[in-house]
Amino acid sequence: MGFDEVIYGEAKSVALLLGLLEEYVSRKQNVLITRVQNKKAKALLKKHDSAFFDKESGVFMLKPLEGNKGVKQVGIISAGSSDIGVANEAYYTLSYMGIGAEIIHDVGVAGVHRLLDKIEDLRAYDILIVVAGFEGALPTVVGGLLPHPIIAVPTSVGYGTAKNGETALHAMLTSCANGITVVNIDNGYGAAMSAFRMLNLKK
Amino acid sequence: MGFDEVIYGEAKSVALLLGLLEEYVSRKQNVLITRVQNKKAKALLKKHDSAFFDKESGVFMLKPLEGNKGVKQVGIISAGSSDIGVANEAYYTLSYMGIGAEIIHDVGVAGVHRLLDKIEDLRAYDILIVVAGFEGALPTVVGGLLPHPIIAVPTSVGYGTAKNGETALHAMLTSCANGITVVNIDNGYGAAMSAFRMLNLKK
Amino acid sequence: MGFDEVIYGEAKSVALLLGLLEEYVSRKQNVLITRVQNKKAKALLKKHDSAFFDKESGVFMLKPLEGNKGVKQVGIISAGSSDIGVANEAYYTLSYMGIGAEIIHDVGVAGVHRLLDKIEDLRAYDILIVVAGFEGALPTVVGGLLPHPIIAVPTSVGYGTAKNGETALHAMLTSCANGITVVNIDNGYGAAMSAFRMLNLKK
Amino acid sequence: MGFDEVIYGEAKSVALLLGLLEEYVSRKQNVLITRVQNKKAKALLKKHDSAFFDKESGVFMLKPLEGNKGVKQVGIISAGSSDIGVANEAYYTLSYMGIGAEIIHDVGVAGVHRLLDKIEDLRAYDILIVVAGFEGALPTVVGGLLPHPIIAVPTSVGYGTAKNGETALHAMLTSCANGITVVNIDNGYGAAMSAFRMLNLKK
Amino acid sequence: MGFDEVIYGEAKSVALLLGLLEEYVSRKQNVLITRVQNKKAKALLKKHDSAFFDKESGVFMLKPLEGNKGVKQVGIISAGSSDIGVANEAYYTLSYMGIGAEIIHDVGVAGVHRLLDKIEDLRAYDILIVVAGFEGALPTVVGGLLPHPIIAVPTSVGYGTAKNGETALHAMLTSCANGITVVNIDNGYGAAMSAFRMLNLKK
Amino acid sequence: MGFDEVIYGEAKSVALLLGLLEEYVSRKQNVLITRVQNKKAKALLKKHDSAFFDKESGVFMLKPLEGNKGVKQVGIISAGSSDIGVANEAYYTLSYMGIGAEIIHDVGVAGVHRLLDKIEDLRAYDILIVVAGFEGALPTVVGGLLPHPIIAVPTSVGYGTAKNGETALHAMLTSCANGITVVNIDNGYGAAMSAFRMLNLKK
Amino acid sequence: MGFDEVIYGEAKSVALLLGLLEEYVSRKQNVLITRVQNKKAKALLKKHDSAFFDKESGVFMLKPLEGNKGVKQVGIISAGSSDIGVANEAYYTLSYMGIGAEIIHDVGVAGVHRLLDKIEDLRAYDILIVVAGFEGALPTVVGGLLPHPIIAVPTSVGYGTAKNGETALHAMLTSCANGITVVNIDNGYGAAMSAFRMLNLKK
Amino acid sequence: MGFDEVIYGEAKSVALLLGLLEEYVSRKQNVLITRVQNKKAKALLKKHDSAFFDKESGVFMLKPLEGNKGVKQVGIISAGSSDIGVANEAYYTLSYMGIGAEIIHDVGVAGVHRLLDKIEDLRAYDILIVVAGFEGALPTVVGGLLPHPIIAVPTSVGYGTAKNGETALHAMLTSCANGITVVNIDNGYGAAMSAFRMLNLKK
Repeated sequence: MGFDEVIYGEAKSVALLLGLLEEYVSRKQNVLITRVQNKKAKALLKKHDSAFFDKESGVFMLKPLEGNKGVKQVGIISAGSSDIGVANEAYYTLSYMGIGAEIIHDVGVAGVHRLLDKIEDLRAYDILIVVAGFEGALPTVVGGLLPHPIIAVPTSVGYGTAKNGETALHAMLTSCANGITVVNIDNGYGAAMSAFRMLNLKK
Repeated sequence: MGFDEVIYGEAKSVALLLGLLEEYVSRKQNVLITRVQNKKAKALLKKHDSAFFDKESGVFMLKPLEGNKGVKQVGIISAGSSDIGVANEAYYTLSYMGIGAEIIHDVGVAGVHRLLDKIEDLRAYDILIVVAGFEGALPTVVGGLLPHPIIAVPTSVGYGTAKNGETALHAMLTSCANGITVVNIDNGYGAAMSAFRMLNLKK
Repeated sequence: MGFDEVIYGEAKSVALLLGLLEEYVSRKQNVLITRVQNKKAKALLKKHDSAFFDKESGVFMLKPLEGNKGVKQVGIISAGSSDIGVANEAYYTLSYMGIGAEIIHDVGVAGVHRLLDKIEDLRAYDILIVVAGFEGALPTVVGGLLPHPIIAVPTSVGYGTAKNGETALHAMLTSCANGITVVNIDNGYGAAMSAFRMLNLKK
Repeated sequence: MGFDEVIYGEAKSVALLLGLLEEYVSRKQNVLITRVQNKKAKALLKKHDSAFFDKESGVFMLKPLEGNKGVKQVGIISAGSSDIGVANEAYYTLSYMGIGAEIIHDVGVAGVHRLLDKIEDLRAYDILIVVAGFEGALPTVVGGLLPHPIIAVPTSVGYGTAKNGETALHAMLTSCANGITVVNIDNGYGAAMSAFRMLNLKK
Repeated sequence: MGFDEVIYGEAKSVALLLGLLEEYVSRKQNVLITRVQNKKAKALLKKHDSAFFDKESGVFMLKPLEGNKGVKQVGIISAGSSDIGVANEAYYTLSYMGIGAEIIHDVGVAGVHRLLDKIEDLRAYDILIVVAGFEGALPTVVGGLLPHPIIAVPTSVGYGTAKNGETALHAMLTSCANGITVVNIDNGYGAAMSAFRMLNLKK
Repeated sequence: MGFDEVIYGEAKSVALLLGLLEEYVSRKQNVLITRVQNKKAKALLKKHDSAFFDKESGVFMLKPLEGNKGVKQVGIISAGSSDIGVANEAYYTLSYMGIGAEIIHDVGVAGVHRLLDKIEDLRAYDILIVVAGFEGALPTVVGGLLPHPIIAVPTSVGYGTAKNGETALHAMLTSCANGITVVNIDNGYGAAMSAFRMLNLKK
Repeated sequence: MGFDEVIYGEAKSVALLLGLLEEYVSRKQNVLITRVQNKKAKALLKKHDSAFFDKESGVFMLKPLEGNKGVKQVGIISAGSSDIGVANEAYYTLSYMGIGAEIIHDVGVAGVHRLLDKIEDLRAYDILIVVAGFEGALPTVVGGLLPHPIIAVPTSVGYGTAKNGETALHAMLTSCANGITVVNIDNGYGAAMSAFRMLNLKK
Repeated sequence: MGFDEVIYGEAKSVALLLGLLEEYVSRKQNVLITRVQNKKAKALLKKHDSAFFDKESGVFMLKPLEGNKGVKQVGIISAGSSDIGVANEAYYTLSYMGIGAEIIHDVGVAGVHRLLDKIEDLRAYDILIVVAGFEGALPTVVGGLLPHPIIAVPTSVGYGTAKNGETALHAMLTSCANGITVVNIDNGYGAAMSAFRMLNLKK
């Protein structure tokens, strides 16, 4: 199904990851590893110095990214600059899957006019991934304004009652806007893969 | 402090409430009882047929309401028609305290333009009480557009991840708009009393 | 956006609903009301005897359903017969939106061979809505076998640690299958609307 | 609305913060950054040696504080010495907004006489911000004694059943005193901004 | 140990309870049954018309109560009139165990002066049982003023964030007053038995 | 009330603690500080080299402990060797208050015979403090065998469903043994103070 | 696998169940339906008057039970008389599967001697199912005394911190006795099926 | 009962562990210590250089493992490579108890065909221990395919809604497959001991 060349890196040791990379090198294949901690990435990059690594999201790719080219099918809207890691994880996963994407930064709900100014631009994408922490209200407002498929990604940004993303997650699931779908907290990767599934509909 | 003539009616028996009302009658004082169930209210109204009762909120007042007159100091914004009971509890409590108030119905976040159309009207009030269930995003949007004191009231409307109002409560407390204050779930009465405290600042 | 003719009926009184229906009748429009309790539905049907009502899901439609015709774009897979109400809510909402759909009953994970026997049939749909209570494992297995967009709907079926659907919800969100999206507990309506959004991609 | 010159510093890198500060310097504007960790503050102070930094609360201000002068409109009551960081965040935010404030330390509920001795002094303020961890009972007692607007701030001080401030939060929201409003756990900044909104009523 | 003649009645059928009572009658012993629902109590009283039953608490005793005589060793302080059932359960259990007790009603924390007026009276008891719902702050204030053993009983009175007594329970356990002990929510019986254990120290 | 010479050390800086100690030295008074981290204790001991410090519990006392002498009134039963810190906190607090105490180690419920062998020894104490983590069943078994006042202390020992002591706490509060009282998780200090209150009954 | 002739009856309508029974009758097979509510059972028994129904557990069997004969392989220990329904569900399921079983009633942990008196009798069974509500300590004590496979079943008996069986569940899972296994709250049926799986080892 | 030579190492100091090991050496007995952190293991190995230590699980054994020989009675199925530590804890505990075991790696539910390919191999074991994190669906699928006793072990692998293993735990307990039993999160040791108890049935 095209999904199997992605590795969840968080709980794997450097030794294990190096072994796996070796295999992909020998098979002349690219591979995407998610959630590689900075320290571990350094060790991997020593051996594979032409690889790509994004510090904010922990995304690691064996072959350098040739640029996210072509038509931008997916718009990734991010509520605040603290959500950058999650937005990047979605962005690089889409790039890896060969899908054009763009991040639209800092579209907070507390300043709704800034969002309204961008609505026409957003209309151009096929799918919208909406990333937000704190109270997670952005997908509701966007979903109320646009008829696109909306993939909401709650982030663990905030403190106290933000409950490590649980509040944003629950708010998105109980959204009074119609037809919002939701993925796990901080799961930029999952949002990208779900957009990938949906884009099959265009084929 | 002017607060003591209000009774929490939910867990009190008809017998107990009738006894208390007798006292107020003999002292020729008015009294407000909150959360009187419909059945219990019928029994009270039999004895006190000139009393006032609001079915939606369960507010009971010994002396008939003479109308919420004068300047409208408090605007009560309600996100959906299921929040009517909580909005009414705030409204009648304010009336009882002698404060002019108005309810603005059905200002949902999923249709943000309807809200924007009303912003200039909302500007006229001193204080805004914002009542919302589901994901509770309304106070954030209002608070981002207006500089008023904002008292957010989460309601227990919704199902599943709405968690009987907990999600709206947490969303309001983690609002990315500045300076929103919050009261207990469904606590229209508390919102009104807190507006009452704030209006002392104008004296 | 084509979404506005749907009413959330659960917390609305018969009087209010009858008033709203009157309006739609006079405008010669159809309307969908979700989560109408059986008792309330009887009262509505007295006045509107040609209306449609589904007892299992509480879906009410002013104009009788002309049949879910044409190409079946959405497959609704249900894990057990207790999930029928939620599956029906999705089905009738799709019908109302003019989208062809079919329910595939009783495809439990505990008997994985029954599921495997149906995989080729499932491949024919554009989108799969997967409805499951208890441990909510069905979307993972389906998502591992098929590349379709998958909308997982947790249901509140089960007892004890099922926690009214919370366990199924969390299991679906942490699915080790790629790109599963999730809606609120028991939210068949939301799943249908989200399929509706996705099908725009085919236009 | 006068709110936009405040930055949430916790999740922002030194590089990003330095960039933002540069801008404010060039615009000759002051700026407040909240929740700057000590380590990051050191790096900022190296470049901006006339800036102000409070270690307890993490409040950073570009222009040195000229003193919290004039009439003291807001009294900040703190239950214990472990709540000092949160009290300071409220205090410095108010100073930055140009509002006179004072902190009243160590007014615990377990020694209620110490509180009673101070009641007359507290009466002089327009608004009371009440900061408390553990069981969070202080706002109830203060709110029962004084008619002021009361902004309760739960803190994450305590262990076990204190649940990182959740118990204090819930206790404040269920307060049997009338009209208490509440902000997020440890949110001294939000309490200050809410007092700022309320003080508009005096104009 | 003198504890064995008490039966937890809530989940037992009338038939089972009648059988058990028969036994005690034939042994000419008294017995205490807790949490007997009103309906079930009526059936029991038909057969045992000289028995004692308290409607508020559901306490049933085979032999009529001869009065709570002698020195009042235990003071039961109740925060509000909705806590009466729990206070009564403690009271009648103590009576049954032969211990003198008294209930002191409506000593709320929101009106701390009413409590202070009673402090000298409270000093006369050996042990204080403090019953409170909502935010459960009363044991802290009492415990800060008096050196007695304090048994705190949280009640399920309140709504929303009161969480069926959980907030009061957690508040009492995190009390900043020293040496408060706590029993289960609504457990007036357990508080009485724990007082009974403590009074052994006087022998 | 004899309680005020105890300081909660966890969240206080070395500088603050040294200041406080200075005061007690000048007043020639002893003082107890709880929950002093090892690192901070070292700094305090440098200045006050005759002070007492217990590494396991973090208890710090200005004047060296003269030994826990005289009649042993309180027995502290500990379920496992991981509970030693909490047991010690209770023990040293009692010593500081001048009350004789003894710790009985490793009396687990999984080997109930070891407990039964010690029952007669336990009978000699006035009060029993029972410290247990994991499922927290020890107070129930002890309370079923002995008529003493029982102060149960849940500890945060265990993993997974132990939930940092919450499971032991809830198990102790729902104990089917009569009259068990409970204090906060890991609160050895609170258990000791509550024993101190109870022993007033012997005077 | 011999498991498929069991139906979960709780959420199925009488009509549906009657249809299913019809099928089994025509196939001359027996069938077990769990959790049939009393009202529904009456309707089923009208049509199938030779069927078996147990009121306490809601177990329904098409063919009358021929007695639980032969060697008693499984001992079902019940902590209190309120756990009878769950114990019965285990008992009748085992009977249906053709396995000899016995219930041992009222073996509470608070009176540990009663349990010790029965230890030798318990030794005779192959497997022990231990049913307990409240703090759920019984499996730990039994598991510490006997080397048998132990299947712990938490029940929803208790109030307040019993949390509908969650406390017993967590206590059993964190048991300090070795090798206890656990099933869902109130799941007597699951315990029986798990014993059935284990007994395959004897073949 | 053969269980007493196992020590829970996590919360014990090196000094304490060395003392305990000394005893076992002098008694010429082997001993198993679970959850020894790497750092502590190094210190132990310095003194006992012929001892066995497994880095992944933290299992420490005084006498070198002579190999897991003989018939493989227990199959340990692991869903992903991040579950290796828990699988190893089960494996080495079984080895220590003298029971033949084997680990079958990486049998995820998202690729159900890989599991189906191994079903015949799995049939050969007496008992299956199934280890899984994330949504924990593996035991359900295995339990639906095979009639063996199944001991499910949830692991704390995953993020966000995985809730440190709670979601897998709850999913396993609500499994729609019959007769699955469950142990605490990450409790490989407990799973092994429970298999040990079951294997007594074969004797």
